[in-house]
Amino acid sequence: MLFEKYQSVIEDAQHANQLRGFYSHYPEHPKAYGEDAMAKGEDAFKKLLNHPFEALLQEEATGWEGEEISPYTLENLGVTYPILPVGTLVSQSIRGAGQWSDTPVQERAALLVESLEKIKERFFEIAYATMHTTGQSFMMSFQASGPHAADRALEAIAMGFQELTRFPAEVNWTKPMGKSAITLEKTFRPMPKGTGVVIGCSTFPVWNSMPGIYADLVTGNPVIVKPHPGAVLPIAIVVAEIQKTLRENGQDPHLCQLAADTAGHLIAKKLCNHPLVKLIDYTGGTAFGNYVESIPDKTVFTEKAGVNSVILDSVENMRDVAENLAFSACLYSGQMCTAPQNFFIPASGVGTPQNNLSYEEVVAQIKEAVAALVSNPKMGAGTLGAIQNEKTLERAKAVTQEQTGIALQGDAVPNAAFTHARTFSPTLLETDAASHELYEQEFFGPVIVLIRTKDTAESVRLAKQMAEKHGAITCAAYTTRPDVMAVITREMNAVFAPVTFNLTGYIWVNQHAAFSDFHVTGGNPAGNAGFTDPMFVVNRFVWVGNRIMKTGV
Amino acid sequence: MLFEKYQSVIEDAQHANQLRGFYSHYPEHPKAYGEDAMAKGEDAFKKLLNHPFEALLQEEATGWEGEEISPYTLENLGVTYPILPVGTLVSQSIRGAGQWSDTPVQERAALLVESLEKIKERFFEIAYATMHTTGQSFMMSFQASGPHAADRALEAIAMGFQELTRFPAEVNWTKPMGKSAITLEKTFRPMPKGTGVVIGCSTFPVWNSMPGIYADLVTGNPVIVKPHPGAVLPIAIVVAEIQKTLRENGQDPHLCQLAADTAGHLIAKKLCNHPLVKLIDYTGGTAFGNYVESIPDKTVFTEKAGVNSVILDSVENMRDVAENLAFSACLYSGQMCTAPQNFFIPASGVGTPQNNLSYEEVVAQIKEAVAALVSNPKMGAGTLGAIQNEKTLERAKAVTQEQTGIALQGDAVPNAAFTHARTFSPTLLETDAASHELYEQEFFGPVIVLIRTKDTAESVRLAKQMAEKHGAITCAAYTTRPDVMAVITREMNAVFAPVTFNLTGYIWVNQHAAFSDFHVTGGNPAGNAGFTDPMFVVNRFVWVGNRIMKTGV
Repeated sequence: MLFEKYQSVIEDAQHANQLRGFYSHYPEHPKAYGEDAMAKGEDAFKKLLNHPFEALLQEEATGWEGEEISPYTLENLGVTYPILPVGTLVSQSIRGAGQWSDTPVQERAALLVESLEKIKERFFEIAYATMHTTGQSFMMSFQASGPHAADRALEAIAMGFQELTRFPAEVNWTKPMGKSAITLEKTFRPMPKGTGVVIGCSTFPVWNSMPGIYADLVTGNPVIVKPHPGAVLPIAIVVAEIQKTLRENGQDPHLCQLAADTAGHLIAKKLCNHPLVKLIDYTGGTAFGNYVESIPDKTVFTEKAGVNSVILDSVENMRDVAENLAFSACLYSGQMCTAPQNFFIPASGVGTPQNNLSYEEVVAQIKEAVAALVSNPKMGAGTLGAIQNEKTLERAKAVTQEQTGIALQGDAVPNAAFTHARTFSPTLLETDAASHELYEQEFFGPVIVLIRTKDTAESVRLAKQMAEKHGAITCAAYTTRPDVMAVITREMNAVFAPVTFNLTGYIWVNQHAAFSDFHVTGGNPAGNAGFTDPMFVVNRFVWVGNRIMKTGV
Repeated sequence: MLFEKYQSVIEDAQHANQLRGFYSHYPEHPKAYGEDAMAKGEDAFKKLLNHPFEALLQEEATGWEGEEISPYTLENLGVTYPILPVGTLVSQSIRGAGQWSDTPVQERAALLVESLEKIKERFFEIAYATMHTTGQSFMMSFQASGPHAADRALEAIAMGFQELTRFPAEVNWTKPMGKSAITLEKTFRPMPKGTGVVIGCSTFPVWNSMPGIYADLVTGNPVIVKPHPGAVLPIAIVVAEIQKTLRENGQDPHLCQLAADTAGHLIAKKLCNHPLVKLIDYTGGTAFGNYVESIPDKTVFTEKAGVNSVILDSVENMRDVAENLAFSACLYSGQMCTAPQNFFIPASGVGTPQNNLSYEEVVAQIKEAVAALVSNPKMGAGTLGAIQNEKTLERAKAVTQEQTGIALQGDAVPNAAFTHARTFSPTLLETDAASHELYEQEFFGPVIVLIRTKDTAESVRLAKQMAEKHGAITCAAYTTRPDVMAVITREMNAVFAPVTFNLTGYIWVNQHAAFSDFHVTGGNPAGNAGFTDPMFVVNRFVWVGNRIMKTGV
C-alpha cells in the first residue's frame, strides 16, 4: 500500500499545518539536490525546446500549438502542446472519476505525495522552464516552482486529508427509547463536487496552480489545468508527472489534464461555463476573476489583483528598512502579487531612536537603496529578473512618460548573461495623499508610489481604504510604537489585510511560507480564497450521510 | 468567567460533533421540564397575544406591525413587532460588532450557550407560539422549536468554537539560516466577515433559523433575523432572550435584531442587498433562494425546495413499511422539507421473504396505512397538524380537482380541540414513470405521488434524476438485497442525496438528528449548505495572519 510509504510525510505535514511554525518538506536550497542536478536539469530543459511536448498521457489532441517566448532571449521556446476541445477535456476528465472518488483517501493522498516526489526529480528542469517563460531569476524560479510549490501542494494534501478523515466513516447511532432503543448504522462519505478547472497566470505558473490542483485531486475531483499560453512548460512537466503517477497506480491519467490554448483562441471562458465543471481556481486579473466568481452554480477560488501598501511610521534603522523595502520592490521587477506598491510616508517624517528623519530624507534613502540595488553588478539583474511580457514593459515605460513627480526613473538594466533580456528597473513616483486616482491603480510591475501623508493616521486610513476597495495581499508596516502597531493591525485586519511589521535583513514581505502563512485571506477584493486554510478544501466536497436501520422498536 | 460555567457543555458538544453518534443536550420529552412547565408556558403564551411584543431591546422602531394567523383558530394572534428601516437595522448591527469580534471566542461561545439556557426556560411558550403560527402539532412544535433547535444551535456553537480555535493565536516561526536564524512572531486571527441576515420560513421558524443565527454569532458576526411575516412570535422570543443575554454580559443587544416585516412590505431583498450585509442564511422557496445565491459579494447559505423520493424494492414486512411511510408522509401534512413525496414502485411489485407483493397490493397497503392513520381518532389530527397557509391548502385542493389517477382523496380532517383548524389529509396520486411533468413538481404539503416504474433500476434512475434536477434532502429506500442497497447508495450519493434504508417503527426519514445527521448536503438544488458541517462555519470568517520581526540576520 502506498499509504504506508508516505504516511509519516502526510502526518508530519498535517501536524505542521496545525502548529504553523517553520516547516518545509522540500529543501529550498538547490545544493540540497546534489552536485550535478543543476547541469542535468538545464540539459533536460534544452532537450525539450523546439519539440512537441509528448510526455502527456492524454488522448484526443486535435492539434499542437505553443507560443511561449523567453523574456531572457525574446526567442520562441518552440515547444508545442496538445490542443483538445473543451468537450473532450471534460468528458475525459470524468472517465476515471468514479474510481478516483472510490479510492480511499489514504491511497489518494499517498499517490499525490508520490507525484510530488517525481516532480522533485525535475525541479531544475521546471526551474529553467519557469525562468524562460516568466522572466523570474533562476533562484526564484527554482524555489517558487520547485520546493515552495511542492510544499504548498503538500500542505493542501494534508489539509484535505485531515478534513476528509474528520468524521467516522461508519458509526452506530443508538437512541434510547425508554426500555428499548433504536439503532441506525450511519456512514459518512465526503463526496467530490466534480471536475475542477485551475486557471494559471503567466508569472507564477506552478506556485499559484499547484494548491488548487492538489486540493481538487485529494478531495476526489478530477482537474483540468489551463495554463496561461505564455507560461505552459513548467506546469506541463508537473501535469506529466501527475499523469505518470496516476497511470502507474492504476488510475486514469485524464484525472489531471493539461488544457493548453493560444492567445488567439482562449478557452478559459468556455471551460468555466461547461455544466460538468463544478470547481474553478483562478489566478490573474481582476476583471476575469470577477467574471468567474459570477458564474452560477460553480465553487470558485480566486486570487486577483491588489494594491499592497507600506506604512512607514517609525524605525530602528532607516537604512536597513530602505534596503529591505528596495529588495521587496525590485524582486522580480514588482511582478509578484505580494510586492509592495504604495509607500505611505508622513509629511512630518519617520521617527528613529536617535532623531526624526524628515520626509525628504526617507524618500532619499528609499531612492538610494533602490538605485544601489539596481546598479549593483552582483545583485541588480538577478534580483530584477526579466519582465514577463511586453504589456507590463509598456505600462512601466508609460509611467515614466506620463507621470510627473518621478523620484527615480526606471530603465532597462543590462543582464550580462542575456543581452536581449526584457528588463526594466523600478520607477519611483512621488505624490501626495490627494492624488487617489494615481495610486489607486495596480501598477503590476516595476512601479513604486511614494505618498506623502499628513501623518500615520492618514497613512493607515488610506492603506485601509485601498485594501477595502482594490484588495491587498500584504501590508508592510514599520513602527516602534506598540500603540501604533495595535492600530495598524486592527485597521488593516478589519479589511482582511494581513500586516507584517518591521522586516529587515534577509526576509521580505513578499514571502508567504507554506505550513504557516495563509496566502490571500479571501476577505477583500484581492481574492475570495487562500492557500491553504480549511475553507480552501472543505468547499470542494460535500458530506453525505447514509443510514441503515439495524434494530428498532 | 462565563466560559468556565459552560466549558464542559461546549466540549461535550464538540466531542459529539466529532463522534456523530447519538447525543442531545436538551431532552426532547416535555416531561423532562417539570410538571407545571406546560401549563405555565401556555399561560405565558396567552399573555403575549393581542399585545405589542415589547421584550426586544432594539431601538429606533418606526412602527409596530403584526399579521400572524393561527392555522388552528384562523384568528389573528394580535401580536405586533417593532418595524425598523433596513438602514437602521444594519447600522445598529455594527455598533457593537468591534467589541463582539474582540471578545475571546471562549466567552462568545459561553454567552451563546447561556442564551440557550434562557431560551430553554421558554420552550413551552415557544412551542405554543410555533403551533399557532406554523400549524405544527403541539408535540412537534415543542420538539422542533425547543430542544431540537437548541441542540442544533449548540452544534453550530461547538463547530464554530472548534474552527475558531483550530490554529494557535500566536506562534514563533524560526527559520534556520545557516549559523543564524530569523524569528517572526506570528498571530492568527479569525476575522468575522460582517453582518449576517437570517431569513426564516413559515413552517420551521425556529429550527431552520437557529443554526445560522448561532453560526453567525459564534464566528463574531452580528446577525439580523428576518422571519416570515406569518411566523414571527417563536423566533421573536428567541431573539429577545439572546438580546437579554448580550446586554447582561456587557454586549450590545443589537448584535442580534429582529427584522419583522409584513406581506405588503417585504424587506428581505433590500436587506440582502445592503452593502454592509456580508452573510445570508435563507430557508424557503427556490426562486428567491436562487436569487439570493446570485447576489455578488455575499456568502450565502440556502435551504430551498426539493423533491424527496421513496424507492421500494424489497421489504421484510410491507405492513410495517407502509405504516412507517404513511406516518412520514402525514407528519405535519407533508409540510416538512424532509417529507417524502415521490414513491417509486416497480410494476413487478415488491419482494418479501414470503412472496412477491404485486404493485397493486403495495399501493393498496400504502393507501390503507395513510387512510387508517388519518382516520385514527387518537393519531390523525395530531399527526397531520394544520396547514400553515391558504396557498398550501389551495394547492392540495387543486390536486384533487385537476388530477386523474387519485388513489386516495385528501380532505379536511376534523380536529376536536380546534374546530376551525385548517386541515387537509394527504392525497395519493397514482401515475407512471412517463408522467415526469406531474412528479417533477414539488407539492409542498399533503400530496403523495405513487409512480409505477419498470423495475428498481428505473426507480433509482428517476429518483436520481429528480434529485439532480430539483434537489432532494432525503431519500427513503427499502431493499433486502445488499447489491441493490449498494447501487441505490452509489447513485443517490452521486447527486448528493443521502439515503435512509429500511426504516420501520418509531423512527422516520423526516428526522435529522443534531450532532449526527448533516441536514442538507449542499450538493444539489435543494440547498448549497447544511447544518452543521465545517463549511457552514468556516465560510463565515477569514483567517488573517500578522507577523512581527523578532530576530533576524
